[in-house]
Amino acid sequence: MAHNWNLDQVVSQLRMVRTAWRDSQRGNSERGDRELPSPEALRDIITHLRGALFPMRLGPADLRRETEDYYVGHTLDAVLNALWRQVRLELRYTARQQNDATEHEIDARAVDLVRQFAAALPDVRSMLDTDVLAAYAGDPAARSVDEVLLCYPGMLAIVHHRLAHVLYQLGVPMLARLVAEQAHSATGIDIHPGATIGRGFFIDHGTGVVIGETAIIGERVRLYQAVTLGAKSFPADAEGNLHKGQPRHPIVEDDVVIYAGATILGRITIGAGSTIGGNVWLTRSVPSGSHVTQAQSLQERLPPASGE
Amino acid sequence: MAHNWNLDQVVSQLRMVRTAWRDSQRGNSERGDRELPSPEALRDIITHLRGALFPMRLGPADLRRETEDYYVGHTLDAVLNALWRQVRLELRYTARQQNDATEHEIDARAVDLVRQFAAALPDVRSMLDTDVLAAYAGDPAARSVDEVLLCYPGMLAIVHHRLAHVLYQLGVPMLARLVAEQAHSATGIDIHPGATIGRGFFIDHGTGVVIGETAIIGERVRLYQAVTLGAKSFPADAEGNLHKGQPRHPIVEDDVVIYAGATILGRITIGAGSTIGGNVWLTRSVPSGSHVTQAQSLQERLPPASGE
Amino acid sequence: MAHNWNLDQVVSQLRMVRTAWRDSQRGNSERGDRELPSPEALRDIITHLRGALFPMRLGPADLRRETEDYYVGHTLDAVLNALWRQVRLELRYTARQQNDATEHEIDARAVDLVRQFAAALPDVRSMLDTDVLAAYAGDPAARSVDEVLLCYPGMLAIVHHRLAHVLYQLGVPMLARLVAEQAHSATGIDIHPGATIGRGFFIDHGTGVVIGETAIIGERVRLYQAVTLGAKSFPADAEGNLHKGQPRHPIVEDDVVIYAGATILGRITIGAGSTIGGNVWLTRSVPSGSHVTQAQSLQERLPPASGE
Amino acid sequence: MAHNWNLDQVVSQLRMVRTAWRDSQRGNSERGDRELPSPEALRDIITHLRGALFPMRLGPADLRRETEDYYVGHTLDAVLNALWRQVRLELRYTARQQNDATEHEIDARAVDLVRQFAAALPDVRSMLDTDVLAAYAGDPAARSVDEVLLCYPGMLAIVHHRLAHVLYQLGVPMLARLVAEQAHSATGIDIHPGATIGRGFFIDHGTGVVIGETAIIGERVRLYQAVTLGAKSFPADAEGNLHKGQPRHPIVEDDVVIYAGATILGRITIGAGSTIGGNVWLTRSVPSGSHVTQAQSLQERLPPASGE
Amino acid sequence: MAHNWNLDQVVSQLRMVRTAWRDSQRGNSERGDRELPSPEALRDIITHLRGALFPMRLGPADLRRETEDYYVGHTLDAVLNALWRQVRLELRYTARQQNDATEHEIDARAVDLVRQFAAALPDVRSMLDTDVLAAYAGDPAARSVDEVLLCYPGMLAIVHHRLAHVLYQLGVPMLARLVAEQAHSATGIDIHPGATIGRGFFIDHGTGVVIGETAIIGERVRLYQAVTLGAKSFPADAEGNLHKGQPRHPIVEDDVVIYAGATILGRITIGAGSTIGGNVWLTRSVPSGSHVTQAQSLQERLPPASGE
Amino acid sequence: MAHNWNLDQVVSQLRMVRTAWRDSQRGNSERGDRELPSPEALRDIITHLRGALFPMRLGPADLRRETEDYYVGHTLDAVLNALWRQVRLELRYTARQQNDATEHEIDARAVDLVRQFAAALPDVRSMLDTDVLAAYAGDPAARSVDEVLLCYPGMLAIVHHRLAHVLYQLGVPMLARLVAEQAHSATGIDIHPGATIGRGFFIDHGTGVVIGETAIIGERVRLYQAVTLGAKSFPADAEGNLHKGQPRHPIVEDDVVIYAGATILGRITIGAGSTIGGNVWLTRSVPSGSHVTQAQSLQERLPPASGE
Repeated sequence: MAHNWNLDQVVSQLRMVRTAWRDSQRGNSERGDRELPSPEALRDIITHLRGALFPMRLGPADLRRETEDYYVGHTLDAVLNALWRQVRLELRYTARQQNDATEHEIDARAVDLVRQFAAALPDVRSMLDTDVLAAYAGDPAARSVDEVLLCYPGMLAIVHHRLAHVLYQLGVPMLARLVAEQAHSATGIDIHPGATIGRGFFIDHGTGVVIGETAIIGERVRLYQAVTLGAKSFPADAEGNLHKGQPRHPIVEDDVVIYAGATILGRITIGAGSTIGGNVWLTRSVPSGSHVTQAQSLQERLPPASGE
Repeated sequence: MAHNWNLDQVVSQLRMVRTAWRDSQRGNSERGDRELPSPEALRDIITHLRGALFPMRLGPADLRRETEDYYVGHTLDAVLNALWRQVRLELRYTARQQNDATEHEIDARAVDLVRQFAAALPDVRSMLDTDVLAAYAGDPAARSVDEVLLCYPGMLAIVHHRLAHVLYQLGVPMLARLVAEQAHSATGIDIHPGATIGRGFFIDHGTGVVIGETAIIGERVRLYQAVTLGAKSFPADAEGNLHKGQPRHPIVEDDVVIYAGATILGRITIGAGSTIGGNVWLTRSVPSGSHVTQAQSLQERLPPASGE
Repeated sequence: MAHNWNLDQVVSQLRMVRTAWRDSQRGNSERGDRELPSPEALRDIITHLRGALFPMRLGPADLRRETEDYYVGHTLDAVLNALWRQVRLELRYTARQQNDATEHEIDARAVDLVRQFAAALPDVRSMLDTDVLAAYAGDPAARSVDEVLLCYPGMLAIVHHRLAHVLYQLGVPMLARLVAEQAHSATGIDIHPGATIGRGFFIDHGTGVVIGETAIIGERVRLYQAVTLGAKSFPADAEGNLHKGQPRHPIVEDDVVIYAGATILGRITIGAGSTIGGNVWLTRSVPSGSHVTQAQSLQERLPPASGE
Repeated sequence: MAHNWNLDQVVSQLRMVRTAWRDSQRGNSERGDRELPSPEALRDIITHLRGALFPMRLGPADLRRETEDYYVGHTLDAVLNALWRQVRLELRYTARQQNDATEHEIDARAVDLVRQFAAALPDVRSMLDTDVLAAYAGDPAARSVDEVLLCYPGMLAIVHHRLAHVLYQLGVPMLARLVAEQAHSATGIDIHPGATIGRGFFIDHGTGVVIGETAIIGERVRLYQAVTLGAKSFPADAEGNLHKGQPRHPIVEDDVVIYAGATILGRITIGAGSTIGGNVWLTRSVPSGSHVTQAQSLQERLPPASGE
Repeated sequence: MAHNWNLDQVVSQLRMVRTAWRDSQRGNSERGDRELPSPEALRDIITHLRGALFPMRLGPADLRRETEDYYVGHTLDAVLNALWRQVRLELRYTARQQNDATEHEIDARAVDLVRQFAAALPDVRSMLDTDVLAAYAGDPAARSVDEVLLCYPGMLAIVHHRLAHVLYQLGVPMLARLVAEQAHSATGIDIHPGATIGRGFFIDHGTGVVIGETAIIGERVRLYQAVTLGAKSFPADAEGNLHKGQPRHPIVEDDVVIYAGATILGRITIGAGSTIGGNVWLTRSVPSGSHVTQAQSLQERLPPASGE
Repeated sequence: MAHNWNLDQVVSQLRMVRTAWRDSQRGNSERGDRELPSPEALRDIITHLRGALFPMRLGPADLRRETEDYYVGHTLDAVLNALWRQVRLELRYTARQQNDATEHEIDARAVDLVRQFAAALPDVRSMLDTDVLAAYAGDPAARSVDEVLLCYPGMLAIVHHRLAHVLYQLGVPMLARLVAEQAHSATGIDIHPGATIGRGFFIDHGTGVVIGETAIIGERVRLYQAVTLGAKSFPADAEGNLHKGQPRHPIVEDDVVIYAGATILGRITIGAGSTIGGNVWLTRSVPSGSHVTQAQSLQERLPPASGE
């Protein structure tokens, strides 16, 4: 019932391909032990953090208010220990790339970083409460604040983002990315962990939303599915070379609503209180209180403008 | 190997944030015990229901026709007991919000509801058989009806929807929503459980499809990826206030095909047998047998039309 | 705590619906034992293949270079045995549909097929190395080649695709489809396993990308989210009947970049080195070195052109 | 690959046997729903209780002293909720047998009982500390008190017993029995949960030890494998009818040592400080400070020996 | 964090040892594929069989009488399929040892064997009901027949034995042995699957009980811990060569009670209604109604008795 | 559905008991982090080692001879890494007790120790092969050498012992003890890891066997259930103080058979080729070729014999 797959040959050819890769990378990759963070570990960490942040709604079924601090304390303890191991892996990986820092320094830095992450959690919960209220207010179909937290993919995305953003700011961008990609996979909402997002944020439906690394979003902003807040990489930049770190994504001020399919590109500003219609393509700033519809935006683009 | 995360302080700050939230909600949320339905439990219920509906294709590997009734009967028994517990949780939750009904009444209502759900299953299977045939007929690449059921994300979405729709109609919208969101997460297809969908429905590719709560879809309708059947929330309604329950999504009559990226908004009617081209933006009813292409729809929108 | 769900009646009605289905299919479906491949088995196979292809980065945490061949060899052995069982299921299923081949012939063909699959793995790894480098070069935010492999949904999609494509070519399209749909579900990127894709391929963000069965993509091509390489099914073909197998999707030559939301339909050719702008709708071939923007493509479509 | 097992006939015959059983029991058994406690649930409860009692040694690997109260509190909360459900099952089962008490009364009694169980835990831990020290002192091979707790089957047996004994005293003898049998299965040591055992108790090796329901064991007693403290059921009692509840097992006073294979039967007293040799058969009380060897006991038994 | 264990050398030395073993066995062992039955598979089979035999007491928590046939039918279907695979493994293994029978014949024999096993289940249940009643009657501490079934190790042992005995009689002694050893491991009761045991059998405490292959036990027999029904292998047989299959263990007639530690050796007969005292050593038949105590048996053995 | 268990009070009382314990132990126990080895980790290690030692019989079902080295190599790699972590925990624990050695020295010692353990495995396998043959030869009921390895509890015990003995000799007695106790729990056979046991060792039935730390057993020795090779702790040593490490258990020379229930105590020698009858109690050396029966031994013990 078992067969011969010419394994020896396949194994040896795979070894040759690996060797060629390693030689070509001159040690940029796969040096010594495998020391990359673990997506599975991150997934568990986030699941338990969600429970610790919202114990009576996302925690264990039997919990009561009288004893929730025991649950929160113990869960955080386990989660932060696990996170510390992942942080250490990323810091060591980065140091290996750059040949700096001793192992001892890294471990100490990891402890410090996790402590700061822990200290940020109350603020994260406080922000997320405003997001829950925004979703409840923004969707006439929502029946309760609890349903929003339990069911809405937009809530899942923002919970992951607010945690990923803390990790990003503390200097572990790979962990931040892994957290963000897990929300991306579950919801189709792709928020770069570097994006800055104010209180009361709400994304409805959400599939296809993309928010770039240097985007800045104010308070009480609402987005629908397939909205892009991207970089104007074309045709402005003919070589296709973006310089990392430079501000290149939109600034969206307070109380803006952006409907489904709108594409907003470049370091432009959408003034406070504006509404951007569905499928609008926008590459210029608009003042506060603007109402931009697809027709207008088409007109903007069609006139003399040969090449946009 | 373990470190001090200032846990006592973090735990106490989190408690303060929770207390603030609870005070602000004056009991709308997190009252007493946690009593929200469980997404994980729903996931298991749907997985087993799929097996019970299609025992020889989605059931256990060893099954034979001679004994499939045992499998179906036992699986349904376990699933309906599990569903009953979730139904009871949602009914209790709702009653708590509204301070009505005794626990005893709720339990009885839950039993009745699950019995009706069970009684609806043969019809659901019968509908799904027409969906399988529609997918097989609609996709030239499909090799067999079984491959469609096993592999196509559009089939997964419609299986979930037909079950979620029954739950929605029976009065447990949060459970219905959880079922719908699980398909949304797996397929990128977002069908509100309230939507009414006729026999022989097929969605190809599917990522980015959004179908709203009051949409009504006839028989033998076919959709492609990124089609939206949404509410015309803008600019018609300047305050952004939709009234829940009012019909606000399209009516799509029998034998309509809608190609990828088309956006159809508002309580309009797409006449029977029409085809709507890719990326079309449509906010007006069209008669039976219409062929709408993007060019046409752009023309509709570009003219004098100041505000659309 | 347990209740009566009128199970006998539901079970018997479900049996009647199944019988009706089977009669209507006259044996095309569900014949005798259940013999369809298992999505769960495929999922495990791919997970372990990813580890065997990239042992130090996607394999077990403790692995060292000294012993990775043991890991690769043992993992491949287990994976190929498991794959052989799934291949046999699909071959038997197909033979049952066509009433050809003895069980003995099928088993031998399955062994041969898996051996060829194994022999293709070193090439697959070699191709994927070029994809990793392309992603690293193409995204200014990428910090290392390892981060790309670990975190990017586009990498997940191409790993699945390159494996699915081998299965497709070897004659097990249902297995190929299952592998492809798992990537589709996780990333929102829908690549038909039949598509031919050259070295150094990169998809950024990715949600909503659709690549059709007969698409041919050259080397060093880069795509962004929501790009469609589809069939021009409308309005050219009024009956909506596509003939399976005929070339009907685009050819994209080397070094092309296609920005988010572009829709490219039909058997047209995008010349080498071209860039296609965001949201462009393109149904005509363009020569090498073209720069197509939305404005241009709108102009193409808006003029006299009554019907496109 | 699947075969016909004449299932319909087997199922119907099994039903007939069940019906015959139920008729013969006239409702003593299997009435209505299944409501027996769950051995698996008890197993989990005891595992977690062991961790809560000895957090730094049997709890989770990462625990630190600073945060162990969170762990202890949360674990106890979950464990006591789970225990309450099992207690309720046994109380309902018993009430059903006796047709007394309303469901409401039972639930309240269950709450009260679990609260008393919780209150007894500090004493249990305190007793167990003396057992650990006794084992450490009694076995020259023991290297540390921690090794004793971690490795010794005698420790496992006494931990289970002290918990089972509390359950027994509180009036849930079936739960107590399940806890005791789990230790019996793991260690071969069979201690009836009704047995009364003083501080500093140690069993070495342990396989085959049997301690009866009404046995009373003083402080600092040490036993070896295959020791029986049983009832003198033969030949004194010709009908073989023991009356439940009557004292019928030995009293072993403080500081007694009983070597392997000794059999001590009936309500006799082993005086303080005695040592009983290996394989001794003893059915008469012995005064404090006795040294009983097999030879002596054989002599007792061989003569005309009216007694025994 | 990972180290070099000189794996290549260890692996190659282990290979040499395996080769030496295989050479020494000239193919009696480990020929080609591994084809031994799986202890884990057997464990699952027995667990589910226990549920199918006693659905309301050992089956799933939610079961109700109305639907237990679905559970029983489906569970048996799955269990018998799984058992068939194990039976086939043993039959193939045996045939390989003896070079007889084609694979096709073996598969057919396996089907037939499992069908007979299924047909025996109602009788097994019926026998076990008498065992439950015997335990309830025999132990004054037993509170209900259900407690006996749920908690008593003696019941676990007899459930395993009655199933193992059917397998033994049908010609799969290795499977029978595996089932028996699982009870042995859990209870310390070692009953050879060949032993013949009548209705109403009860073992109390049980640790250390050994019952040999050709033992024959009548109805309503009761044993206590550490009773041996063994072969008189010493000194009667100087070469220590027992001939397999020959009757060599005791016959115990109806209504016999044997107290703890009694050792009964050889093909002797214990007459109906006898009682054998604790620790008695017996190698001669005794007539019906005998009462044998240790003193008596010692006297029998001590006198002139040159050698025994 | 959740209740108040006065948790705060229970938690605080448990803390007080822990504090009292720690104070009383002045740091002998529970210092700082929990650093004891993990029984669960050891269990997995042994399970995988058994597979690596006997790949075609205890390894994965699909294995073939062609590829077993991959399996053996990869399994050993994972197992030795896991073992190294447990070794380090015990070495650190011991060093903490004794305040010697730096962490760095300990880690290096752990590496060295595991390397020696690995190097011993081929010899262990070779020894076990002789044990398998001994069991096959010694039990007329054994049908094949493979059945012995798969089913016999005596084989399980000796596999564990030979591995535990290597660990014991290398200086990690707590790990050795954990391995031994797992066999003890599964089989009722209690072999101290310090015992020295020659080739071709066989224990039949086994429940209740006890073999002490300094026992020395020659080649081809066979034991039956409930045999004790213990220390003569009584009455020779009135204070009950045994000095650890001193030889105090029997020497059993080659080709000895010891029947069930025999008790052999003290540093005596059983001469080569002797047979010791069932239930014999022996505390004096016997020359080679002795046949000792219970009657004889009783006679030895019965005479005037004041003290024994």
